[in-house]
Amino acid sequence: MAGPPRAVAVLRHAVRNGLRSSGRPVLVACSGGADSLAMAAALAFEARDAGVRVGGVTVDHGLQQGSAERAARTAELLRTLGLDPVLVRTADVGVDGGPEAAARIARYAVLTRAAQEHGARIALGHTLDDQAETVLLGLGRGSGPRSVAGMAEVRETGGVCWWRPLLGVRRATARQACADQELPVWDDPWNVDPAYTRVRLRTEVLPILEEVLGGGVAPALARTATMLREDLEALDALAAAQLERLSGAHDLPAAGTAALPTALRTRVLRGWLRAAGVPDLQAVHLAAVDALLVRWRGQGRVDLPGGAGVVRTSGRLVMQRPEDRVAPPPHSEEPSA
Amino acid sequence: MAGPPRAVAVLRHAVRNGLRSSGRPVLVACSGGADSLAMAAALAFEARDAGVRVGGVTVDHGLQQGSAERAARTAELLRTLGLDPVLVRTADVGVDGGPEAAARIARYAVLTRAAQEHGARIALGHTLDDQAETVLLGLGRGSGPRSVAGMAEVRETGGVCWWRPLLGVRRATARQACADQELPVWDDPWNVDPAYTRVRLRTEVLPILEEVLGGGVAPALARTATMLREDLEALDALAAAQLERLSGAHDLPAAGTAALPTALRTRVLRGWLRAAGVPDLQAVHLAAVDALLVRWRGQGRVDLPGGAGVVRTSGRLVMQRPEDRVAPPPHSEEPSA
Repeated sequence: MAGPPRAVAVLRHAVRNGLRSSGRPVLVACSGGADSLAMAAALAFEARDAGVRVGGVTVDHGLQQGSAERAARTAELLRTLGLDPVLVRTADVGVDGGPEAAARIARYAVLTRAAQEHGARIALGHTLDDQAETVLLGLGRGSGPRSVAGMAEVRETGGVCWWRPLLGVRRATARQACADQELPVWDDPWNVDPAYTRVRLRTEVLPILEEVLGGGVAPALARTATMLREDLEALDALAAAQLERLSGAHDLPAAGTAALPTALRTRVLRGWLRAAGVPDLQAVHLAAVDALLVRWRGQGRVDLPGGAGVVRTSGRLVMQRPEDRVAPPPHSEEPSA
Repeated sequence: MAGPPRAVAVLRHAVRNGLRSSGRPVLVACSGGADSLAMAAALAFEARDAGVRVGGVTVDHGLQQGSAERAARTAELLRTLGLDPVLVRTADVGVDGGPEAAARIARYAVLTRAAQEHGARIALGHTLDDQAETVLLGLGRGSGPRSVAGMAEVRETGGVCWWRPLLGVRRATARQACADQELPVWDDPWNVDPAYTRVRLRTEVLPILEEVLGGGVAPALARTATMLREDLEALDALAAAQLERLSGAHDLPAAGTAALPTALRTRVLRGWLRAAGVPDLQAVHLAAVDALLVRWRGQGRVDLPGGAGVVRTSGRLVMQRPEDRVAPPPHSEEPSA
């Protein structure tokens, strides 16, 4: 007996183990585009054997003419595939950060609510090609290994589990799987609009990079992201253990912290400052606190955002919280903040 | 009193601390190109106050018409700058790996010998732009965080200290410093030959990436490389400590090793296999040995290059060396290998 076409088999294989790894129901976030539609079809097929309930959610951003009708058609298609329940939700898109970012923020808010209401994981259709673009974007920002490590296959934030089973699957394979199953794909015009950085990376930068480096660039970027992610997870876990071991109520021992390798030391400091509630911590603040450890020559208090500060005294870094500073003297009549 | 022009000051500042960090003399590897020439001039200037001897070495690869005359002119220029000694060395360029790689291998062999003969560090003129190109090349190869971490400012290998003081300096600044000091720059035609991947990254990929991402790409790539390097150094040191703690003569405890985070575990395994003399270790071998730890279901010996192998037995990974396998039985008359 012939199996399914190769692309369909690749998609089903990509979702199989993750689907079975938990009994928690899944809601497929589906725009009607090729990636999320191919994933929805694969999950609908695998749900039968896995014994896990798979539904769908499609978001109407209300930004394009006819978006409500399109959302309704996508929902109908998901129902035909056997997904249950299928939700259509309207996003309330603001303006902060530009249209791309605002739409993303509104969409994630809608998906978060749907996940919470249904006690479900959210499956997202990001592919290997999306991962490669994310890595390039992160590199261009220069915000460090974290941004270059791209997206995680499974990520729990705010009580919601985000699952990206297609990070190892090429975009072209997802499209082929839709064609093989005669699924009508919706092509978002925004996906080819050169006003968006991501679109230009996809259509201008990656093809020339691919040509110059002799091919295989997108898989190479995705592979690097995976290895980086493992490194970051290990360092974050080791730094958390060191912070636990070293930190007192409001202080850190200078010598013990200074002796750590740079990568652990800066993570310990960041964790310590964040735990103390320092908001909006920048690299420049971290560097100044680190200098109290590794370039100590008697410098004074390091001021931090939010009014807190750090001093080095008696061989320890001591956190001075804003309330320590503005606390009224014993007999003051000022109200406490 | 007016100071030196800005570009000249930037170059001098870039070499100052590193020059003083050690009394070991320096040999500037100088092709006559803008980067290494600007560095040579900065080091010649700073050498007076630092009290460190700075010489130069220029390599004649014998690959281009008139290369011997050019090397002699470069050496003369270095002597005029005050460098002492100034060496002209001929490289014996092979053919392995293509012309770029073969020339690099021959050049590093010549520089290694010069460093050993003079007990000197070798200063190399790689700039921030070279670093950015190296990061992009590494990404395209997908060989992991190590290749993306680019070049180190100081690296000791084979008893030689390689020093790259210009990794934070733009190529354009080095060129400007040459112009400001009226130093005649030699422009290697190979640096604009599109037959070379690095040249195409420089002239085709980086400009479009710069345009799409809105500028600042080269510094962002270099910044990411620095942060990655710190992460890698920390993980390598931690893994070396774990390997020291865990490993017996020819074995590793399965449970203790399996309990490490992935990033440490794979480094411990790599270190263990390398220490046992396994040559040409590939990712696929490492994955198979790792599976003995984290996906253990009674699988047999993992064969490794060079005839060695690893088995899991009695809760330990045990190394079987080639000589363990081919050893003759006690009464055999075969000669031992």
